[in-house]
Amino acid sequence: MRLGVLTGGGDCPGLNAVIRAVVRKSVLHYGHAIVGFRDGWRGPLEGDTIELDLDSTRGILPRGGTILRSSRTNPFKRDDGPDAIRATFERLGIDGLIAIGGEDTLGVANRLHAEHGLPVLGVPKTIDNDLGGTEMTFGFDTAVQVATDAIDRLHTTAESHNRVLVLEVMGRHAGWIALHSGIAGGADVILVPERPVDLEQVCEAIQVRHRRGSFFSIVVVAEGALLAEGPEAVGDQTDEFGHARLGGIGDRIGREIERRTGYETRTTVLGHIQRGGTPTAFDRVLATRFGVAAIDAADARRWGTMPALRAGRIELVELAEAVASLRTVSEADYEVAESMIGLPRSGGHTANMASGGSPAP
Amino acid sequence: MRLGVLTGGGDCPGLNAVIRAVVRKSVLHYGHAIVGFRDGWRGPLEGDTIELDLDSTRGILPRGGTILRSSRTNPFKRDDGPDAIRATFERLGIDGLIAIGGEDTLGVANRLHAEHGLPVLGVPKTIDNDLGGTEMTFGFDTAVQVATDAIDRLHTTAESHNRVLVLEVMGRHAGWIALHSGIAGGADVILVPERPVDLEQVCEAIQVRHRRGSFFSIVVVAEGALLAEGPEAVGDQTDEFGHARLGGIGDRIGREIERRTGYETRTTVLGHIQRGGTPTAFDRVLATRFGVAAIDAADARRWGTMPALRAGRIELVELAEAVASLRTVSEADYEVAESMIGLPRSGGHTANMASGGSPAP
Amino acid sequence: MRLGVLTGGGDCPGLNAVIRAVVRKSVLHYGHAIVGFRDGWRGPLEGDTIELDLDSTRGILPRGGTILRSSRTNPFKRDDGPDAIRATFERLGIDGLIAIGGEDTLGVANRLHAEHGLPVLGVPKTIDNDLGGTEMTFGFDTAVQVATDAIDRLHTTAESHNRVLVLEVMGRHAGWIALHSGIAGGADVILVPERPVDLEQVCEAIQVRHRRGSFFSIVVVAEGALLAEGPEAVGDQTDEFGHARLGGIGDRIGREIERRTGYETRTTVLGHIQRGGTPTAFDRVLATRFGVAAIDAADARRWGTMPALRAGRIELVELAEAVASLRTVSEADYEVAESMIGLPRSGGHTANMASGGSPAP
Amino acid sequence: MRLGVLTGGGDCPGLNAVIRAVVRKSVLHYGHAIVGFRDGWRGPLEGDTIELDLDSTRGILPRGGTILRSSRTNPFKRDDGPDAIRATFERLGIDGLIAIGGEDTLGVANRLHAEHGLPVLGVPKTIDNDLGGTEMTFGFDTAVQVATDAIDRLHTTAESHNRVLVLEVMGRHAGWIALHSGIAGGADVILVPERPVDLEQVCEAIQVRHRRGSFFSIVVVAEGALLAEGPEAVGDQTDEFGHARLGGIGDRIGREIERRTGYETRTTVLGHIQRGGTPTAFDRVLATRFGVAAIDAADARRWGTMPALRAGRIELVELAEAVASLRTVSEADYEVAESMIGLPRSGGHTANMASGGSPAP
Repeated sequence: MRLGVLTGGGDCPGLNAVIRAVVRKSVLHYGHAIVGFRDGWRGPLEGDTIELDLDSTRGILPRGGTILRSSRTNPFKRDDGPDAIRATFERLGIDGLIAIGGEDTLGVANRLHAEHGLPVLGVPKTIDNDLGGTEMTFGFDTAVQVATDAIDRLHTTAESHNRVLVLEVMGRHAGWIALHSGIAGGADVILVPERPVDLEQVCEAIQVRHRRGSFFSIVVVAEGALLAEGPEAVGDQTDEFGHARLGGIGDRIGREIERRTGYETRTTVLGHIQRGGTPTAFDRVLATRFGVAAIDAADARRWGTMPALRAGRIELVELAEAVASLRTVSEADYEVAESMIGLPRSGGHTANMASGGSPAP
Repeated sequence: MRLGVLTGGGDCPGLNAVIRAVVRKSVLHYGHAIVGFRDGWRGPLEGDTIELDLDSTRGILPRGGTILRSSRTNPFKRDDGPDAIRATFERLGIDGLIAIGGEDTLGVANRLHAEHGLPVLGVPKTIDNDLGGTEMTFGFDTAVQVATDAIDRLHTTAESHNRVLVLEVMGRHAGWIALHSGIAGGADVILVPERPVDLEQVCEAIQVRHRRGSFFSIVVVAEGALLAEGPEAVGDQTDEFGHARLGGIGDRIGREIERRTGYETRTTVLGHIQRGGTPTAFDRVLATRFGVAAIDAADARRWGTMPALRAGRIELVELAEAVASLRTVSEADYEVAESMIGLPRSGGHTANMASGGSPAP
Repeated sequence: MRLGVLTGGGDCPGLNAVIRAVVRKSVLHYGHAIVGFRDGWRGPLEGDTIELDLDSTRGILPRGGTILRSSRTNPFKRDDGPDAIRATFERLGIDGLIAIGGEDTLGVANRLHAEHGLPVLGVPKTIDNDLGGTEMTFGFDTAVQVATDAIDRLHTTAESHNRVLVLEVMGRHAGWIALHSGIAGGADVILVPERPVDLEQVCEAIQVRHRRGSFFSIVVVAEGALLAEGPEAVGDQTDEFGHARLGGIGDRIGREIERRTGYETRTTVLGHIQRGGTPTAFDRVLATRFGVAAIDAADARRWGTMPALRAGRIELVELAEAVASLRTVSEADYEVAESMIGLPRSGGHTANMASGGSPAP
Repeated sequence: MRLGVLTGGGDCPGLNAVIRAVVRKSVLHYGHAIVGFRDGWRGPLEGDTIELDLDSTRGILPRGGTILRSSRTNPFKRDDGPDAIRATFERLGIDGLIAIGGEDTLGVANRLHAEHGLPVLGVPKTIDNDLGGTEMTFGFDTAVQVATDAIDRLHTTAESHNRVLVLEVMGRHAGWIALHSGIAGGADVILVPERPVDLEQVCEAIQVRHRRGSFFSIVVVAEGALLAEGPEAVGDQTDEFGHARLGGIGDRIGREIERRTGYETRTTVLGHIQRGGTPTAFDRVLATRFGVAAIDAADARRWGTMPALRAGRIELVELAEAVASLRTVSEADYEVAESMIGLPRSGGHTANMASGGSPAP
C-alpha cells in the first residue's frame, strides 16, 4: 500500500511521535510506503508532498511541532475540495490517508469518508483534551506539566510578596488544563468554561484565605472561562488583530480582583509555551501507541475510524463518535479540586468555581 | 471520626500528595481528625504518631518523599502484631486507617482487615506500576519521565561517540518503566523481566544497526531482566552488602555486549533518582484523586478496599483483588516497542526482546 | 555577635540560599546569633523578627522566594526611619545587619551606613543583572534559563505554523535577560532598552528571513525596550491598574509586526514565572558564596560593603560603588547576538537591534 | 578564507553551539567558508569532511553531542601525523583550523602550531572545568545542573528512609562538579580528588549528623576522589573491560560507610547522563561567545591561541598557557562547602573533606 499522513490544526507536542510511529511500523513491519502531505489539508488539496522514511523521521521523537507543518485549511470551504483530494490520491497512487488532528481535522476526515467514500482515518489530537471517544489525547499531559511548572514558580513569588497571582492557561471550551494543572499546582481558585464565574465569590474566597492567615492566592483561569455576571463569553472577545489571549479573561479577572479586594494582583498568560516543545514521556508513549494503531487500522482498511485510549488500551472507534460531542471536565474531577480548596459553597445555587464543600460540623 | 494514615515500603513521588489530599478533604469537608503514623507499620505497632492538619501539610504537594517517613516493618513478623495495632487504635481512639503502600503494605492491610477485622483500607503505590486492580499507580509516571530524560541525554553521547549505552532502570518483577521509557526515549533494545533475554540476539540487533549505518545503540534494561541462557535471575543476585543495583544486570549486559561485539559500551544505573524528587503533574493529580477517594471510602467505612484507576475514573476495588496478582507488561505495549525497533525476529521461537517484526517483502 | 538579615525588593531565586548560608556559617563557624527581619525594611523599622537557626533554615536551599518575605518599604520615606532602625538595633542588641536586595535596598543600606553610621552591609540581588560593582547577581541565571526554556518551546510552534512569535521578558532598564535568553534560544530579533527600536527595521528583518525560506521568526523583547519612532518609553506606560506587563511593549510590537508584514503573530508575556521557583545550580552556588562572604564581612565589621563576583572570585566592594551606576548590556555581548542573526545593518546609523553584521562580498 | 573545524575528546553539551556560532558568524559576517572535519583529529588526518553552512547547522543550538562526531585519535601517535594534516590542508585549501576540545585536543593543537607551524587555534571544552587559562568552560554548568537535579531527587528518598545516599559524579583530576553540585544540592559530605579522604572521618561526620537528629546523609563523590588510607588512586582502577565507573570509588565508599556505621547506604553512579543532552542557557551563551571569538581569531590569523572567559569577558590566551596546568578546585570554593557542612575538623592535620570549621565557643 501507499499511504499518506497529514497534521492539521494547532501545534501539539507528540505530533512528530505519531508520524515517526506510523512510518516505522509501516516500513519495518508492513512494507507500505508513507507519503507526507504538507500543511494540513492543503497538502492533499494541492498534492504537496514530502517523502517519509526511516531517515527523514530519525530523531524527531522528542521534538515538538510537526515536520509536516500544519494549517487550518478546510477542504469543504472549496466546492471542489473532496474532488481535488480524490484526484491527488489517484495521481499519486494513495491507498489511504491518516489525518492527525483535532475536532476540525477529524470532522473533515469523517465527512470525506462518510460523504465522499474516501479512504481516510484519523488520529485524535488536542492539548485541550476535549475530544469525544477517547479518555485522553496526547499533548494534554505536556500542557498540564508546563502549566504546573509555572504554578510552582508563581507560588514562591506569591508567598514572598503577599500577592494574588492569576495564571491564564489554554482551554477555550473545556477546562481540563486549568483543572488538572490547578490540582497539581495546588491552586486556590480554578475557573473553567464549564462553570460560569461569579467574581464576587472569587474575591470572597481570596479574602477568606487572608482572614485565615494565607496572604497570597493562586488563581488559574482557562482562557474560555465565563463570567456569571454578564451573558457574553469574555474569553471569546478578540481585538482587531485577533489577539484574544492578551487583554483576555485572565487580565480582566486580575484587574477586577485587585479593584475589589485591594490586594496586589498580577496576571501571567502562558500562551503558546503550552503547546510547543518536547513532549512528556507520557505523551510520547501515547502518541506512539496511536501511531502504531493508526497504521494497523490503515493496513486493515478500517477507514472512518480513529484509535482511542479506553481503560488503558488502544481501541478503534468511529470518527463520527469522536466529533459528535465535546468532552468537558468531569464532575468527579471538579469535585476533587473543590475538595482541595475548601471554601464555603454558596447555598442556593450550584457552585460556580472550584471552591470546595463546606466543612461538616 | 478519627482516622490514621501511614506510608509503607519504598519511596514514591506522590506520597505527600495523597497525605495532603486525605487531610484537606477530611478537615475541609468531613471534619474528621487525621493522625499520621510514623515509619510505616511501626507507627501503629508502637503508637508513634504526628498530628496532621492544614498547617502541617501545607506546601508538601510538590515534594517527593513522605513526611510520615516509611519502613518495611511487617506486623505479621511479630506474633502480637495485629493485637498491638488493635490496642493502639483503641488507646488513641482511631476509627480507621488508610495505609498507602505497595504489594507488601496492602497485603498486610488486607490481612488485618480480612483476618483480624481491623478497620483498614489501602491506597495503591508502586513506581513499578505492577499492582493488580488498577490501571496505573502514582510514581510510575515520574519514574518513566526521569528515565526518559536520561535516555534523551544518553542519546547525544551515543551518537557523538559511536557507542552502545546501557541504562538500567527499576522494575524487579515487571518491566513497565523500561518499556515505557524505552518507547518514549526511542531505545534500540528493551529488556524486561517478562521476556528472558538471549544475549546473542541482543548483540545481533546492535550489529544489524551498525550494518545499516547507525553506529550507536541505546539499550534499556529493567533491573529484573532475565538471561535466557541460564535459569537464574541475574538481577536478583546481591553481594554481601545487598548491593544488587551495582554490578547488576545492566553492568553484566554492558560487559557482554562489549566483549561479543567489540563496540565500546558504557552502563549507567539510574538507581534511586527514579523514586525521589518532585512528582510529575500527572502523578500529583492521580495521587490527589486517590487521596480524596480514600477519605471518602473511610467516611463510608468501606474497609478492605482501595481506590483504583479504571477507564479514567476512580473506583473502589477489593484489596484482596489488588494483591492477588502482579500486573506485568501487556502484550500490546510490548508489540508497540517491537514495532518501533524493527529488528528481525528470529524464526522458530517467540521473540525474547523488544526486537520488532520482520519487514514484509 | 548578634546579627540581623533582611530581604528587600522583588522576588529572586536564591534569596533563601543566601539566608541559609549566612545562618549556617554563622552558627557552625562563628557562633554568632542570626535574627531575621520580616518584610524588608519594615522589619527593622518595626522590630518584627523571626528566629533563624539550623532548624528554621533546613530544606530552603532549593526553594524560590524568601522565608523572610519582602516589601518595598523605604525607611527614608519616614522622617524618623533611620532613628527607628537604630532604636530597634539597640533594643534587640543587634550588632549589624545584612541587607539582601537590589538597587533600592542597597541604596538604603548605603545611606544608613554612610549618613547615619549604622552597621549595615549588603548582598547584591537582581534578576535583571544590572547592578554595578559585580559581574553577576544570583537570580539572573534562573531567569535566563526560564526564558530560554520558553523560547525552545515557542520555536516548534513557530516553525510548524509559519508564525512570528514575540516573547516579552523582564528587564526594565537593562536588556541582559532578553540578550542572553535570545542568544541561548536562537532568537531572530532581540530588542533591549539600551538600543531604541525602529519597528520598520524589525519588520524588514523578518521579511528577509521569509525571502530566504525561513517562514517563522522568534522576537525576544525586554519589557523596557524603546521605540525609536517616538520619544516615550512605551514599556513604562501603565494603565489605571498599574498593569504595565500586559498590553505592554511585547503586545504592541506583536500587533505592529502583524499589521505591517501581514504575518500571523502571537505574543507571550512571561511575567513572574521568571522570578519565582527553584534556582538553577549556578544561582544556588553564587548565592551561597555571597552569603558566606557576607557573614565573613559582618564578622570583620566591614560595614558599607557588599560581596561581588569578580573574575570568578568573591570580593568585597563598597556599596556606594555598586549603586552608583546601572550595568547595561555590554557592546561585546550585543555583537555576539548580532553575529548570530546576521541581518543587513542599515547603513547610515548605528544598529538599533541585534541585527547582525553585513555579509562580506 | 576557507577554515576547518573539528571536535575532539569526550562529549560535552555546547559543542554544537560553538560549531553553529563559528559557521553563522563566518557566513553572515566574514564570508569565509567552513569545512567540518569528522571524528576529531581523524578528520584532518584522513581528509574526511562535511560541508557546513547555515542549513546544515540549523536547529543544532539546543542539541547535545556534536554533529561532527568525536574521537580520541591523536595525530602524534603516527609518525606522519602532522604531515598528513598539512597535506589535507593543502589539498582542500584549508587556511586554518579551529579545534574544539579539552586538554588532549588542545595539546595537539598547540604542538601542531608551535612545532609544525600549522595554522591551528583552539576552543576550550571540558565538563570537568579543569582547563587552565579560562575561568570556565562550557558543559560544566550543564553537568553541575544534572548532578544537582539528581541530588534534589535523592534528598527526599534519603529523608524518607533514613538512609545514606552516595552519588558518584564525574571529575577524574579535579572536583569541580562534585564541589559545585554538592554546594547547590546541600550535600553533607563532598569528596574531591584534591583532598585525599580518610573514610573514618567521613563516617564520623555522618554519625555526628545522626546524633543531632538528622538520620540521613547525602555524600557526593568525584570519580577521582582518593582514599587517604592507601597510596593508590582507587578511582583510577579499572576492571578488564575498562569499567572504572561501576564498582568504582562511589560504590566502594558506599559499602564502607554501610559496613562501618551500620546505616543503610545506597550508591548511584550518574555516568554519561552528565555529559549528554541539551546544554543549559549558560552553556549555550558561553559556547556561542567562544565560537564567535574563535572565528574572529581565525580571521585575524591568531593561530596558537584560544578564547577564554576572564572577568566576564572573552579574551584570547595562548594555547600553551591553557594546557600547561590543571585548574583544581579553589581553596575559597572548598571553604564555602566546608562552611555549609560544619562538621568538626580534626585537629592536627588539614581537613580532608568538605567538613566544616569548628563552631566558635
